[in-house]
Amino acid sequence: MCQLLGMNANTPTDVMFSFTGLANRAVEHKDGFGIAFFEGRGLRHFVDHHSARSSPLAKLVQDYPIKSDNVIAHIRKATQGLVSLENTHPFQRELWGRYWVFAHNGNLLDFQPRLHAAFRPVGQTDSERAFCWLMQELAKAHFDMPSIAELSRTLAELMPELARHGTFNMLLSNGQALWAHASTNLFYLQRRHPFGRVQLQDEDLSFDLASQTTAQDRVVIIATEPLTRDEPWTAFASGDLKVFVGGELAA
Amino acid sequence: MCQLLGMNANTPTDVMFSFTGLANRAVEHKDGFGIAFFEGRGLRHFVDHHSARSSPLAKLVQDYPIKSDNVIAHIRKATQGLVSLENTHPFQRELWGRYWVFAHNGNLLDFQPRLHAAFRPVGQTDSERAFCWLMQELAKAHFDMPSIAELSRTLAELMPELARHGTFNMLLSNGQALWAHASTNLFYLQRRHPFGRVQLQDEDLSFDLASQTTAQDRVVIIATEPLTRDEPWTAFASGDLKVFVGGELAA
Repeated sequence: MCQLLGMNANTPTDVMFSFTGLANRAVEHKDGFGIAFFEGRGLRHFVDHHSARSSPLAKLVQDYPIKSDNVIAHIRKATQGLVSLENTHPFQRELWGRYWVFAHNGNLLDFQPRLHAAFRPVGQTDSERAFCWLMQELAKAHFDMPSIAELSRTLAELMPELARHGTFNMLLSNGQALWAHASTNLFYLQRRHPFGRVQLQDEDLSFDLASQTTAQDRVVIIATEPLTRDEPWTAFASGDLKVFVGGELAA
Repeated sequence: MCQLLGMNANTPTDVMFSFTGLANRAVEHKDGFGIAFFEGRGLRHFVDHHSARSSPLAKLVQDYPIKSDNVIAHIRKATQGLVSLENTHPFQRELWGRYWVFAHNGNLLDFQPRLHAAFRPVGQTDSERAFCWLMQELAKAHFDMPSIAELSRTLAELMPELARHGTFNMLLSNGQALWAHASTNLFYLQRRHPFGRVQLQDEDLSFDLASQTTAQDRVVIIATEPLTRDEPWTAFASGDLKVFVGGELAA
């Protein structure tokens, strides 16, 4: 299984501290990592099929403050598909003139959807098949970009179709919102004023959030397992689809 | 205007030396840079709207030997569209289960094609419109991935449609081949055994290619202006479309 990290904020925020927490879990999850940062409509997308503990690219992400309003990161332990660049999450496509980014934790069995439209997998994973199917079904359901609320309703109809094939924890973003679906493990946390000092769960590293934030900032962090001690992480229920906009839970 | 760099090789090769040559031209071309590396079907895609001279990402590309068989890089001087991440070349889309990467040097006037299919621009540049139109027309011309020769024939029909709107120097790759079209400035060079020492055009930096290569290696470099002294760069004629496969000129 893999580990997911998502971030949704009302002001461009870096994820260096949270990504460091995620990268430390890459001892077991050594089959590549990836991270995508939206900056408005634009996207930076880094993937490496080396472990997030040893990749120079992962070091860059930990050292270089890339500020973003929506981030999706993933560290991989391969279940289906070879360890190669084309099988490394998150995956990216364009729909309605927006980039979409998707990462999946879990394993779908006997999932061979009919992909008859404009989205086809490049690699061999169940995850990329699921993403292509989601993009195809969204494109069929709406001619052009609908509202976030309408997208959430369509996605809520599509999620059970995927989740019945196995474990389907996922993060999806188009740069305007971040959708998260859980079938087993997913937690989220909102940080807002007053910001304090936080401590990584897995190692002796702490960070003073107040030094980097203003009273108006709101940030949601979503992760497979809580990344910090002493913060009130909320567990998703099985089957939950939540959407985060501007650092707030929207539905 | 911008500067292009392409590389096509028969064995995964790094472009640290050539990219250093390109990055040094970023004094004038300061409005962002991007570089895409194919590794088989997989793709690494780095974009930054900061200058290639100062970006930490550009430094990583110069220091970290990413080996690839097809590379497309671009440094930008904005003509159309804001300086922002979504307007930074190269652009990326998926078609027929392969990633496609495109970069453009030039300026297209009055180019507002009817984009009625699955490819829509995310940013505001003439270049991304041209790429979306190319992908749309390829998707209409072939139901599934044709041979490289057939793709070259289709592209040869499409290029004049774009070039009649202005300057259209471009690089395009799907990871199997690299297509290059010139309307004004484009040069290419093949390096093969025996490899010697090469010297960058713009600065006092030389590199011994023999130390990093075998007798079987073949590499084609394509650039807006010759990057090195004392090597036999060949100029494209206006209207030339060339395709490079495995480090050789194929058509």
